[in-house]
Amino acid sequence: MDITKILTSFKIDPKSTLPMYLQIANCLAAKIIDLHIPSGTKLPPERILSQTLGVSRTTAINAYKLLEDRSLVSTKIGSGTYVTAAGSSPSPSIPWEQLFIPQYNSPLSSLLRTMVASPTAENAISLAAGMPDPALYPLDIIESAFKRSNYQLNAADFGHIHTEGYQPLRHSLSKWLVKTGVPSRPDNLLIVSGSQQGLYLIVKTFIEPRDYIVVESPTYLGAIQAFESAGARVLCLPQTNGYDLSMLEDYLVRYRPKLFYTIPTFQNPTGRVASLRERQDLIRLASRHRLVIIEDDPYSQLYYNQQPPPTLKALDTYGGVIYLGTFSKILFPGLRIGWVNAPHSVINRLAQEKQYIDLHSNNIAQTFLNTFLEEDYLPGHLNTVRTEYKKRRDTMANALKRYCGDYVNFELSEGGFYLWCTIAPPASPTELLRQSTAAGVSFVPGEAFYTNGAISREIRLCFATHNESRLAEGIRLLGRILASGCTGTPSASPSTGLPII
Amino acid sequence: MDITKILTSFKIDPKSTLPMYLQIANCLAAKIIDLHIPSGTKLPPERILSQTLGVSRTTAINAYKLLEDRSLVSTKIGSGTYVTAAGSSPSPSIPWEQLFIPQYNSPLSSLLRTMVASPTAENAISLAAGMPDPALYPLDIIESAFKRSNYQLNAADFGHIHTEGYQPLRHSLSKWLVKTGVPSRPDNLLIVSGSQQGLYLIVKTFIEPRDYIVVESPTYLGAIQAFESAGARVLCLPQTNGYDLSMLEDYLVRYRPKLFYTIPTFQNPTGRVASLRERQDLIRLASRHRLVIIEDDPYSQLYYNQQPPPTLKALDTYGGVIYLGTFSKILFPGLRIGWVNAPHSVINRLAQEKQYIDLHSNNIAQTFLNTFLEEDYLPGHLNTVRTEYKKRRDTMANALKRYCGDYVNFELSEGGFYLWCTIAPPASPTELLRQSTAAGVSFVPGEAFYTNGAISREIRLCFATHNESRLAEGIRLLGRILASGCTGTPSASPSTGLPII
Repeated sequence: MDITKILTSFKIDPKSTLPMYLQIANCLAAKIIDLHIPSGTKLPPERILSQTLGVSRTTAINAYKLLEDRSLVSTKIGSGTYVTAAGSSPSPSIPWEQLFIPQYNSPLSSLLRTMVASPTAENAISLAAGMPDPALYPLDIIESAFKRSNYQLNAADFGHIHTEGYQPLRHSLSKWLVKTGVPSRPDNLLIVSGSQQGLYLIVKTFIEPRDYIVVESPTYLGAIQAFESAGARVLCLPQTNGYDLSMLEDYLVRYRPKLFYTIPTFQNPTGRVASLRERQDLIRLASRHRLVIIEDDPYSQLYYNQQPPPTLKALDTYGGVIYLGTFSKILFPGLRIGWVNAPHSVINRLAQEKQYIDLHSNNIAQTFLNTFLEEDYLPGHLNTVRTEYKKRRDTMANALKRYCGDYVNFELSEGGFYLWCTIAPPASPTELLRQSTAAGVSFVPGEAFYTNGAISREIRLCFATHNESRLAEGIRLLGRILASGCTGTPSASPSTGLPII
Repeated sequence: MDITKILTSFKIDPKSTLPMYLQIANCLAAKIIDLHIPSGTKLPPERILSQTLGVSRTTAINAYKLLEDRSLVSTKIGSGTYVTAAGSSPSPSIPWEQLFIPQYNSPLSSLLRTMVASPTAENAISLAAGMPDPALYPLDIIESAFKRSNYQLNAADFGHIHTEGYQPLRHSLSKWLVKTGVPSRPDNLLIVSGSQQGLYLIVKTFIEPRDYIVVESPTYLGAIQAFESAGARVLCLPQTNGYDLSMLEDYLVRYRPKLFYTIPTFQNPTGRVASLRERQDLIRLASRHRLVIIEDDPYSQLYYNQQPPPTLKALDTYGGVIYLGTFSKILFPGLRIGWVNAPHSVINRLAQEKQYIDLHSNNIAQTFLNTFLEEDYLPGHLNTVRTEYKKRRDTMANALKRYCGDYVNFELSEGGFYLWCTIAPPASPTELLRQSTAAGVSFVPGEAFYTNGAISREIRLCFATHNESRLAEGIRLLGRILASGCTGTPSASPSTGLPII
C-alpha cells in the first residue's frame, strides 16, 4: 500500500461547500473503513499531508483532528498519527448508558437474540433455533411469481399503503384462512412484521405494569419476554395432560388476568396438540369469564399425520379469541410477515400502535405473498414440506432411540418442528449443552421455556433445519456425550453465557 | 345465484376431525366473504339445509348458530336466516374498548394515518403527503438487480438475520454514507423498518413520561407524535432565522431536555437549510452541554442547486449526534428501510428494543438495497430525480406567482419536497383546504406542524408527487378559490375532521 498514491488520488474541490478539512477527513475515513489503509498504518505527518494535497497546514491538522474525534486514528505524542484498530470502540464523551431509561432485562433476551442471529457455522448442526430449512425456501416460486407479476407491476403498490396491510393480501389471506377453517374477513386482519410484532402490539394495547396474564408452562420464550418487558406478572398453567381448567378458573377468579396466551397446536416447545374436547371446554370457560385468549398458531399447517382439530378461533363463540399467524415457519422468516386476526375494534387499535412503530409492513413481501396465495402455490409447497419434515421427525426419533435410548425420553410430535425430550439423571442438560456446543451441535435447554426459573431436565430439539443425515449425525453425537457422562446439577437460571450455536 | 347449487358444491367430509357443523359453517362463510352469496340473501331453512347436505338437523342448526356468532348471518324470528350486510360490525360480547390501556391520542395521529393511507383518488391532485412520484420509482433497476443477484441467491439470506441488519447492507450503506460525507462504520448502523421506526426506538430508549425534549417549530408531525405518545413535554424552538441558540441554551439550563430533534437540511415543512456556520455553532453549544441531537435527514440528497453543507453528524466533535436516514424519499416508501447511525452503545440498546418489536427488518428489501448500492445504481437514480424534482419545484413556484401571487408568499426551497407558503389574510388556510379538497386538490395546513396549537397562516405544498402539468393545474385551482374568497378564522386546533385526500 502506497499511502502517497492514495493521497494523491483524492479529489479535493476547493469550491465545494464542504470545508477542505472535512473533504480530506472523509476521503481518509473511506479508505480506513474499507481497509485500503489497514489499522496500525502510520499516516504522513501533517506537514507532508498539507504538501501532498496542496492545502494549508491548519487544514491538515483539522482533518486529522476530526478523524481522531471519530476514533479512526489516534495520535501518539512524539511518534505520529496511526490508524486505529478497526474494531476499537470510540471513547464517547456522552455517557450513553446513563442516559438510557431503565430497561427490563430478561435473562432470556440475549438467548433469543443469539438464536435468531446465529450465522450457522459451516459444520455446526443447529437443533436450537426453530428455523425452516433454507434448502426448502420456495425462492424459485417467489421468483417466478415476481416475474409474472412484473407484467402488471403497479408502482402505486410500492408507495405508502394502509397501516392494516396491502389490501389485496388482506383479501387473499382471508380467503386462504377460511379455506383452512379459520374464520376471517379482510377487515379483521392486520398484517404485521412477523408474529413477534403482533405479540408486541397486543402487549402495547392490553398490558400495563403489574397486570396479570396466564401462559402455558413451558411456552415460547419470545412471548414470555414480550409480556415481562411490559411489566406483566405471569401466571403459569402447567401443561401436564392438557389445559388444567380448574387451575385456570382459580386464576381467573383470584387474579382477573388480562389474557391467556396459548399455542394449542404443536405447541412450542412440547409439540403437544390440545384435543377438540379440550378446546371446547377452554372456550366454554373463557366465554363464561369473558377471558381474552391469544391463540398463537405458527405450526398448525405443518401436520404429519392427520389434520389437527379446529383452531380456538374457529370454535370461538364469544368473540374473545385473538389469533396470531405467520409465514415464517411455512415459507421463510426473512419475509417478516405475519398477521393478527381479531375483532375489528381490536385491529383498529393495534393498527394505531403499529403506525407509530413503522407506518406499515414492507410492500415487497406483501405483494409477493399476495401473488403466492392468489396463484395458489401454497398447498403444493405445504405438501412438499410436510412430507420432508415428517421424514426428518422420524429420522430424529429413530436416532434418539438408537443412540440416546438409555438417557432420553420423548413423545413423538404429530406436527411442528420439535421433539421435547427429558434427560434422565444424573446427566445435566446444561452440561450436555456445554459439551455438545463445543463439538458443534446445539439445542435449547428446557429452562429457557419456563418463566419461573424452574429446574428443568428437558431439552428442545428442532428437526426442521437440517437434512436427515445431519440430524442423525447430531443425535449420535449427543448420544456419545450422554454415554461418556455429563453430570452436573441442572441450573435454575438460564445459561445466557453459553453460545447457542 | 342458485343457493342450492352452491350448497351441493360443498365438500363435507364426515371423517374429518373438523366437526361437520364447522365444515358447513366454513364453506358458507367463504361464500359470504367472497360475495358469492350476497348480503341480504335468505338462506334455506335448517330443515332444507340438513336435507340438501345429508346431515342432521342439529348439525344444520349449529352451523347457522356459528355463522350468527361470527356476525355473518342474522336470524329474524318467524322469517328466517339472512346474510348480514358485508360491512356490518359484529356486536362483540367482549367490551374491547374497556380492556385497552389508556392511550395517548394525538389529534395529529389520524391526520398522519389518513395521509399515509391516502389512496390517491383517480383525478385528485395530492400536494399533501410527502411522497415521491410512483412514476419515478426505480422498479426496473430493482428488477434487474434482483435478476442479476439470482445467480447467487443465497437461501441463508432469507432466514433470520441479525437484528442490527443484513451485514452486507450495513457495509455497502456505510461505504455510501462515507462517500456522501457522513462518517459511518458498519457497526454504527442499525437497519430499521423506515426512519419512523428509528424515531420510535429512540423514544423507547431515551424518553420517560414528563421528560423534556426540544424540537424546531414547525416540524415533522410524525416526530411530534412519537415524542408526545411517550409522554414527553415538548419545548418548541421557533425557526425564524436559523437556530435560536440563546433560547436553546436557556432551555438546556432550565429544563435539561433529553434531546434536540432537528431536520437541518431541507427542513420539513419549511424547506430551510441551516448554514455551515449555524451548524458549527449548534454543535459547539451541544458539545458544551452534552446535548444529544437527533438529526433527521431524509432529504439532503435531494438538492436542486448546490450540495448542502455537511451533516451535523459530519461536524460532530463530541459524539452526541444520532443520525436518521431513509430510502423512502429517494427510492420508494414501500421498501420500509431506513437506518440509525449512532455510537455503538446506542445501536446496541436500540437493537435490543427492536428485537421485541420485529426481530429484524425484512430481508428481501435489504438484499435488494445491498445490490442496488453495491452495483452503484444510486448516483444515477439521484441525478434523474434531482433533475425532475427541480423542474417541478420551479413549475410550482411559477404557478404560485402566476395564479396566487396576490394571496401567497413563499421562499424557493433549494431541495427536498416542499414549498412552505403563507396565505395573506383574510383568506383562511382551513377554508381553503375545505374548498380545494372538495374540488380534488389537497395540501397540509400549517397547523399540523405545530405542537402547541399555534394559529398558523401557512400551508405546505409538496411538489414531488405529480408531474408539471398536474402541479400547475392544482395551483391554478387554489388560485381560483383564493380569488373567489375563502375567508374564515384560522383554527387553532388541527382539523382532523377534514379528509386530506
